[in-house]
Amino acid sequence: MNAVVIVAGGSGRRMRSGLPKQYMDLKGKPLILHTIERFIQFDPQIRVVVVMARDHMKFWKKIAASYKITPHMVLASGGITRFDSVKNGLKHLDDGVLVGIHDAVRPLVNLETIKRCYSAAELSGGAIPVTEMDESVRMIESENRSVHMDRTRLKRVQTPQVFRSEMIKEAYRRSEDSHFTDDASVFESIYDQVALVEGNPENIKITTRVDFQLALSIMETEN
Amino acid sequence: MNAVVIVAGGSGRRMRSGLPKQYMDLKGKPLILHTIERFIQFDPQIRVVVVMARDHMKFWKKIAASYKITPHMVLASGGITRFDSVKNGLKHLDDGVLVGIHDAVRPLVNLETIKRCYSAAELSGGAIPVTEMDESVRMIESENRSVHMDRTRLKRVQTPQVFRSEMIKEAYRRSEDSHFTDDASVFESIYDQVALVEGNPENIKITTRVDFQLALSIMETEN
Repeated sequence: MNAVVIVAGGSGRRMRSGLPKQYMDLKGKPLILHTIERFIQFDPQIRVVVVMARDHMKFWKKIAASYKITPHMVLASGGITRFDSVKNGLKHLDDGVLVGIHDAVRPLVNLETIKRCYSAAELSGGAIPVTEMDESVRMIESENRSVHMDRTRLKRVQTPQVFRSEMIKEAYRRSEDSHFTDDASVFESIYDQVALVEGNPENIKITTRVDFQLALSIMETEN
Repeated sequence: MNAVVIVAGGSGRRMRSGLPKQYMDLKGKPLILHTIERFIQFDPQIRVVVVMARDHMKFWKKIAASYKITPHMVLASGGITRFDSVKNGLKHLDDGVLVGIHDAVRPLVNLETIKRCYSAAELSGGAIPVTEMDESVRMIESENRSVHMDRTRLKRVQTPQVFRSEMIKEAYRRSEDSHFTDDASVFESIYDQVALVEGNPENIKITTRVDFQLALSIMETEN
């Protein structure tokens, strides 16, 4: 049994600065629906938990009424931090399932990436998609000191980060640091490390207007 | 006096897999011309050295004939590695100038980034533009071991990397490792570290078709 927690925002996210990217229209439907559909394509029976700000729920219900939305879906409210949001989402899941935790604003994850993550998590307990680092990187060591890093040893981390539900729930329960921004780090705070699988380079996080344009271009290339 | 070495390719780069990105038409002219123009906008008297594969030079001359190209420009041939190419380019420059080393496929560097780099290099001998790391990063420690990195301490490195010409030439002359892919690392192999200045997020390296689409989108947003 598979599940996915789609992280669409915390309690601090209001719509004052315009419609959040996850609800913007991308080729005829809200971006977040593209994201959800990729997981339904992977498993039509997947349980979907969408975590969003309370303020967005009314708007979401309008969307849900206008589009055919999977019946296996529940809504959870976002917390103050991403950590709190994910923790709230995980409460809706039983033990014994494989759960992906995925950014709502990553609609371009492909089916192969999703498959690789769920398969590897079944074996290892936790798996995350990574891609090559395509630029030089420096690490800041102190205010006036930085060093070049060997980029061949660095990987960019994407989502979905997939785990056995009982393990990631336990990790979230036991963790006392709510500043984690990365689920693998929460997992590794009590378990052995996650497996790394190959992501797809187009699986970008859409946070700016330029990212949004890029997503449009990529979708046109896909079709 | 300012100079820039535009790195457009090494001897290994042939056109068998289609027109290289640096020569592709981007809104009415070859991408590399946009790149060069950004530096001429910064300093109309800038000395421009373009390093390219010998195989591309004939094609380049056709471009140069069709567009108004700065008279302060020389061509240098690319070497086997990026290190060799930059070294060849630097041979065309006198001491006592500030030289930027810039990827031909970064046409979206803005004027402010260029100014910051040249100003800081004048003070410190070497300066490079960096931007925030916007994704989680892991470092591979061994075949089965990787660790989460604190991304707030990581910076993505762009170009132009700007140096006092006599210092960077000396560093390239004395360096015995031709596998450096980053000019700042060559500089730091004999001098103190470079200064970091703020880059601009749009200053991406265009290597894939998707990057190319993104550049188009960004240019439309700029205008």
